[in-house]
Amino acid sequence: MTAENESMRNYILSVMVNNHFGVLTRISGLFARRGYNIKSLTVGETQDERISRMTIEFYGDEHTNEQIQNQLRKVVDVVSVTELRRDSSVCRELYLLKVRATDKTRAALVQIADIFRAKTVDVASDSLIFEIAGDEEKLKAFYSNMKKYGVLEVARTGVTAMARGRLDNDI
Amino acid sequence: MTAENESMRNYILSVMVNNHFGVLTRISGLFARRGYNIKSLTVGETQDERISRMTIEFYGDEHTNEQIQNQLRKVVDVVSVTELRRDSSVCRELYLLKVRATDKTRAALVQIADIFRAKTVDVASDSLIFEIAGDEEKLKAFYSNMKKYGVLEVARTGVTAMARGRLDNDI
Repeated sequence: MTAENESMRNYILSVMVNNHFGVLTRISGLFARRGYNIKSLTVGETQDERISRMTIEFYGDEHTNEQIQNQLRKVVDVVSVTELRRDSSVCRELYLLKVRATDKTRAALVQIADIFRAKTVDVASDSLIFEIAGDEEKLKAFYSNMKKYGVLEVARTGVTAMARGRLDNDI
Repeated sequence: MTAENESMRNYILSVMVNNHFGVLTRISGLFARRGYNIKSLTVGETQDERISRMTIEFYGDEHTNEQIQNQLRKVVDVVSVTELRRDSSVCRELYLLKVRATDKTRAALVQIADIFRAKTVDVASDSLIFEIAGDEEKLKAFYSNMKKYGVLEVARTGVTAMARGRLDNDI
C-alpha cells in the first residue's frame, strides 16, 4: 500500500441544518462544484422538528476533510458540523435486495439470510426481497453472498450515524 | 375528514439516475424552487455502478404528484421515474435513537426494544442507543414509546423502497 492510499479513507460528517427549503441544494451543490466524492447522503428530521440531521459519507484525505468541514460551516442554515469517527460512533445502513430465487435455491437463500439476521420481506415465484441493516462490512458480506444467485435490484438508504454515549467507567 | 385532506397523502418515487456529479443538486433544486415538500430523500449505488437509485418521499395530492414526475423526467441524467404504491412495494427506514437511561429505567427500555425487535447498539452510563428498521408505523410507535424516557438524539436514514416481486400464483 502506498503512502497516498494510506491517507485516503471514508469520512463521516454529521451536519445539523435548519429545516428550510434549499439547504440540501446548497450542500449538494457545494460538493458537486468542487468535485468532492460523496459516497452517501442521508437526511431526516430530528427530535426538534426545526432541525434536520444530514449524514454525509465521502472518500478523501485529511486535507479534503478539513476543506469540506470549513466550507460546510459557511453554508446558510448549517447549524453544526461534527466529524464522526468509526471507533467512537455507531454507523448503520439499510439495504433492500431483490434476489433471483427458484424452488432449488430458495431454501439456501433463506438460510444465508438467517445467518446474517436479514429479514425476508417479500416472496414471489421467482424472487425474494431481503431487508438487512448493519455496518458496512456486514452489508458488503451479505451482498457478496447473494451475488452468485443473481441480485435483481438493490435499494440502499445510505449511512446514518451517531456518536456513542459517554462512558463514565471507561477502562 | 374533508375532501381536501383525503386527497393529500405521502407519495414515494423511485428515480434511477446516472451516477454523475450534479444530479442530486439538480433534483433537490427542482423541489426547492417549486416549494414541494420533500419528506425524505435517500440515494445509493445499485448493482450497476453507473446507476444510482434515489428514493424520494413527499407529501402532496395527485396533481402535484403528476407535476413532479413530469418535471423529474426532464432532468438531465434521470433515467427513469417510477411511483411505488405502498400496497405493492416494500418501504423501509432505519432509525438510530439515543435515549436517556438510568439504573432504574434501563431494563424497561431494553424490554421495549425487544418487543419491537430493535437492537441495543451502545450502552453508556446515562444513555442507550437503539437501532431499529421497519415501516413507518413501526418506527413511529417505537419512537413514541421511547419519548417519555427522553430521546437525546435521532438519526434517520429516510425511506428506501422497492416494488414487490411478481406473484404468478396471485389468488
